[in-house]
Amino acid sequence: MIHPQMATMLVYLFTDIAASAKELQPLLTTACDHTFNCISVDGDTSTNDTLLLLANGESGVRLKDSGVARKFADALLSVCQSLALQVVSDGEGVKHVIHLSVEQAKDRAEAMLVAKSIAHSPLVKTAWAGADPNWGRILAAVGYSGVPIQVEKVEIWIARQKVFGHGVVQKFNEMEAHRALSQPQCEIRVKLGRGKNGVVFYTTDLTAEYVHINADYST
Amino acid sequence: MIHPQMATMLVYLFTDIAASAKELQPLLTTACDHTFNCISVDGDTSTNDTLLLLANGESGVRLKDSGVARKFADALLSVCQSLALQVVSDGEGVKHVIHLSVEQAKDRAEAMLVAKSIAHSPLVKTAWAGADPNWGRILAAVGYSGVPIQVEKVEIWIARQKVFGHGVVQKFNEMEAHRALSQPQCEIRVKLGRGKNGVVFYTTDLTAEYVHINADYST
Repeated sequence: MIHPQMATMLVYLFTDIAASAKELQPLLTTACDHTFNCISVDGDTSTNDTLLLLANGESGVRLKDSGVARKFADALLSVCQSLALQVVSDGEGVKHVIHLSVEQAKDRAEAMLVAKSIAHSPLVKTAWAGADPNWGRILAAVGYSGVPIQVEKVEIWIARQKVFGHGVVQKFNEMEAHRALSQPQCEIRVKLGRGKNGVVFYTTDLTAEYVHINADYST
Repeated sequence: MIHPQMATMLVYLFTDIAASAKELQPLLTTACDHTFNCISVDGDTSTNDTLLLLANGESGVRLKDSGVARKFADALLSVCQSLALQVVSDGEGVKHVIHLSVEQAKDRAEAMLVAKSIAHSPLVKTAWAGADPNWGRILAAVGYSGVPIQVEKVEIWIARQKVFGHGVVQKFNEMEAHRALSQPQCEIRVKLGRGKNGVVFYTTDLTAEYVHINADYST
């Protein structure tokens, strides 16, 4: 039950920087958009989402001092990224976490649309459960995402190998791809060949364990 | 891999009525919209969809004769309905088929949005796998469908029992609801309280068997 927008999640961040809520809000929003709003286990959302950042100024370092804002934003992003990844890794029945990078989109919204289409496909997610380098299911999910792709321009990479490009399957080492997908975390990249925008999305496989957890208790 | 739009499906219908393609097309489109385009197993689509209707005129009965078109349309709908239901029932690992009726929507598009939101929720589908009368997961899927509902106006019915209404859970016999959901087919109705349009959608549970079928073979 984890999905952008956000999901069942209560996150409290504390810092001793000196900054007003007004100064911190845009930094937190940006960090959130790139982390907690880029995760999905099963696409189901809930209403119990909270992300709070509290600053007490104890350090005496002010956010508005020269060079501080950038460093703080980086640190904030890094903390959020780590937490977001932990949320996904801890998803119900999750065996594999996928770093899904959708690149070369016209804009970020388009990249998100493709990322969610892939991340919510039961066929893609069950293939990942089996560490199966099934590029066809990924391509199908790209295809039905609603983004008007040209298939000859699309590339799909599993870990370090290009498995699909120029409209056809590429020669690749299937055992190596299988081994990469067998790891607790694996990167999959999808290039759309439409522009310069992208998104990194953290998602998971769909396992029989997930079904057991969610089917075998009564409410 | 079954989902409206349509899915991996090759349907050929034959009739001995006398009618032109131009006369038959609107009847077939309507029948298709209410049957083959209202089914979903897992939300994944494919490109191999065909629905053909062929008429040879052998019977001598002409579609344009008085009263024939209505009867023929009914028969066509009934055949398509039966086939669509067979497609869903035959889905990977399916143990329960759900007749999901979304009612009181402002228009059909809105009803479809809600139906698909429910039908594609892994949490809802796993609850169905366990024959669990979990109205909360259904309500959550209604809530994140994008349709601006007022929760006090929403009703959820499982078989003959109203389980949610007036914004709160209703007193209902849980064992009876569990027994109804344990059948091969069960009806679930969701009333939105927004208008007079609706859709009947045929969908399924999500079982561990589905995961095994789709995870445990390599491509």
